[in-house]
Amino acid sequence: MSRSETLGVALVGCGTVGSAVATMLTRDQEILRARLGPHLALRHIVDVDFSRAQAAGLDQGLFRKDLDAAVTDPAVGVVVELIGGVTVARQVIEKALEAGKCVVTANKALLAQHGVELMALARQHQAALAFEASCAGGIPIIRAICDGLIANRIDAIYGIVNGTCNHILTAMTQRGRTYAQALGEAQQAGLAEADPALDVSGTDSAHKLAILAALAFGAKIDLAAIPVYGIDHLEPCDVVFGGELGYVVKLLAIAQRQDDGVGLRVRPAFISKEHPLAWVSGPFNAVSIYGHATGHTMYYGRGAGGMPTASAVVADLAAVAMGTAQRAFDHLAVWPDRAAAAKQLPIEAVRSRYYLRVMAEDAPGVLAQVAAVLGRHRISIRSVLQHEPLPAAEDAAGVPVVITTHQAVEGNVRAALAEVDALAVIKAPSVCIGIVEEYPEPL
Amino acid sequence: MSRSETLGVALVGCGTVGSAVATMLTRDQEILRARLGPHLALRHIVDVDFSRAQAAGLDQGLFRKDLDAAVTDPAVGVVVELIGGVTVARQVIEKALEAGKCVVTANKALLAQHGVELMALARQHQAALAFEASCAGGIPIIRAICDGLIANRIDAIYGIVNGTCNHILTAMTQRGRTYAQALGEAQQAGLAEADPALDVSGTDSAHKLAILAALAFGAKIDLAAIPVYGIDHLEPCDVVFGGELGYVVKLLAIAQRQDDGVGLRVRPAFISKEHPLAWVSGPFNAVSIYGHATGHTMYYGRGAGGMPTASAVVADLAAVAMGTAQRAFDHLAVWPDRAAAAKQLPIEAVRSRYYLRVMAEDAPGVLAQVAAVLGRHRISIRSVLQHEPLPAAEDAAGVPVVITTHQAVEGNVRAALAEVDALAVIKAPSVCIGIVEEYPEPL
Repeated sequence: MSRSETLGVALVGCGTVGSAVATMLTRDQEILRARLGPHLALRHIVDVDFSRAQAAGLDQGLFRKDLDAAVTDPAVGVVVELIGGVTVARQVIEKALEAGKCVVTANKALLAQHGVELMALARQHQAALAFEASCAGGIPIIRAICDGLIANRIDAIYGIVNGTCNHILTAMTQRGRTYAQALGEAQQAGLAEADPALDVSGTDSAHKLAILAALAFGAKIDLAAIPVYGIDHLEPCDVVFGGELGYVVKLLAIAQRQDDGVGLRVRPAFISKEHPLAWVSGPFNAVSIYGHATGHTMYYGRGAGGMPTASAVVADLAAVAMGTAQRAFDHLAVWPDRAAAAKQLPIEAVRSRYYLRVMAEDAPGVLAQVAAVLGRHRISIRSVLQHEPLPAAEDAAGVPVVITTHQAVEGNVRAALAEVDALAVIKAPSVCIGIVEEYPEPL
Repeated sequence: MSRSETLGVALVGCGTVGSAVATMLTRDQEILRARLGPHLALRHIVDVDFSRAQAAGLDQGLFRKDLDAAVTDPAVGVVVELIGGVTVARQVIEKALEAGKCVVTANKALLAQHGVELMALARQHQAALAFEASCAGGIPIIRAICDGLIANRIDAIYGIVNGTCNHILTAMTQRGRTYAQALGEAQQAGLAEADPALDVSGTDSAHKLAILAALAFGAKIDLAAIPVYGIDHLEPCDVVFGGELGYVVKLLAIAQRQDDGVGLRVRPAFISKEHPLAWVSGPFNAVSIYGHATGHTMYYGRGAGGMPTASAVVADLAAVAMGTAQRAFDHLAVWPDRAAAAKQLPIEAVRSRYYLRVMAEDAPGVLAQVAAVLGRHRISIRSVLQHEPLPAAEDAAGVPVVITTHQAVEGNVRAALAEVDALAVIKAPSVCIGIVEEYPEPL
């Protein structure tokens, strides 16, 4: 494609992100023309409801209800899928790929579940599938993994990839809110959905982790096999105790290479205040990637919102127009449709440090009993925090004893805590939260 | 190029980075083969001294002294220039481009001064020039600007792009060292050169700023017109006073779009402790980029060192092998050889907030006199910090009065300080340091 050529774009789904994409391709097109040779020409905006498109002041002459005509238009070279969900969106993408069009999508749920089939279909039709917008909004994190860091064996990814959760946790940490208070405030500020389940349960983060890990490890990832824990059971006292010990709690999407496989999980974790991810507050996202050559690199920015996400969509359109998307799709070996299945470790095989809170009777010898159980399970204690007991009614539930461990195998920790919780001196179920520190670098 | 094709590589210059590149292409080649279809075959290592190459255990069968033969070998598709400097390195690159080879280089000084001519030469010979490793080592920052953020009008860049300076400033800030002490410690730790001038003067940062700004603004940048101030005159008391006011001092490379042109400069600046760049300590680099669509994104990692820099070199080799480097070089409009000259503003036209320290007589009415001068120059005061005077000999040099300003035009600040310093109550030259806060986002 010469510098002056034009790529026709059909946009399917015109909500918050779709209308931002359309705005960038029309009202803001001079910005793009100053930076890119080929011209991106928006030819169709397909939706069933154009209220958002109208509110954005988009050209009504582009509005279409006939999906098939738009997607198969010979003047269209690329289809942008921004419907979301895994049914209609999947059909739209399949139809476009079968028509030989490239596809750009932000659909993390669909990619996490059916990315491999869609990539294979794209390959069958000599098309390309691009999805920078599926993870971490405006942060070019897919490109970092597949391009900037391509020479690295990626050993670990730690990601804060859900802005809603990070906003809630920041309010709990910095302003002492309970989970319920922080969620309510986020909902009022428009930073959490009325039904926040997809975000706070960790499911949205797991979708992104599945995509990032597949590319980082060059392997098929089974979404269903990723252990996922949300932030909705996090208690304020653990936020406070963790803070006293030098940690901040974040919902982390973690992928790490171990000798015996790859350990993936999404869950609230304590991260050392010395680690750059601890500084990421409010609705921002950030992803730390550890490469064998680079060591630690981190990517920070807005993980959601119309314009930031549209920035990623339009970057993919530019790559399709330049032909770089197709070449990367053809020549990289990391795409999971070309790769073997990862050996995903069960949560019991994960190695980590841990924060444990046991609710103990305020009596002599309790710590010794707990420590003995931990020792039998080969768990080495690194620190203990026990405050003077309060003369409060809480005593009925025991006094909190906080223990941090050295590296341990999670299965051992779980077995030990089951035994601890069965002790007569323990008054309530123990709490266990992973601790993340700077990944050891091979430099 | 099909997935199984091979790209022949000639490596010219085998020092710290060169031997790391060679190691990645030979000993570590399985890592790359797992991630990239095309094969990168190292065919020649050219140097005049192979002691580093030998120490790295590289295959002596690859060592060559005949530069011309290596560079023009028909089995070589890409030449990697890692000699450094602006004379021989330039000849090597020109020779390679004239032979129709693509060139990958880490040479920031050469690109900052002669990048435009080299790009034009590459274009004339249908080759490509790639230089991810020239800025910020292992951080894929060129790719962020030219690819991930391509849809953005970039409004500002704030970069910590010299690890030596950041290490020294971190020691001054966190451990109360003087500049001379911190420099000495950095030299002992191998984190500063015996002759540290290129780093501490800000020149190295200016080279990187010229490259990043050219691509971000899609414009020719005149390196000689960038105002550059180093860290070697920074006084510990200003580090302390800034800290009391909520700021950390960093050597920042700044590029900002103003209505009347672009404001570029390298100098020590105070950055708010709320800004992510304030957290970047030790030898790490980080670059904040503000796009009209993304808002703030930041990129963090090791800005120097053999393996991190080699990671960027090999990423460029992969892009040459995939053909994406050539397409980006052909199709993007941001390359400065295709662009007009930027309107670079003189330092007097830059708008910023400022930290001022005046050394005043401890007498009534002094602050009023200083404030009156600032007011006449349209400089609005935001805060004043004056401690109880110490009963010390320092009094002869006056007592420090620290003033922070709202946004002001630097020319006005300079004129005002000249007037302040002429007042009879002022005992020593005033100090002026720019203050950087979160860039206002259009979101």
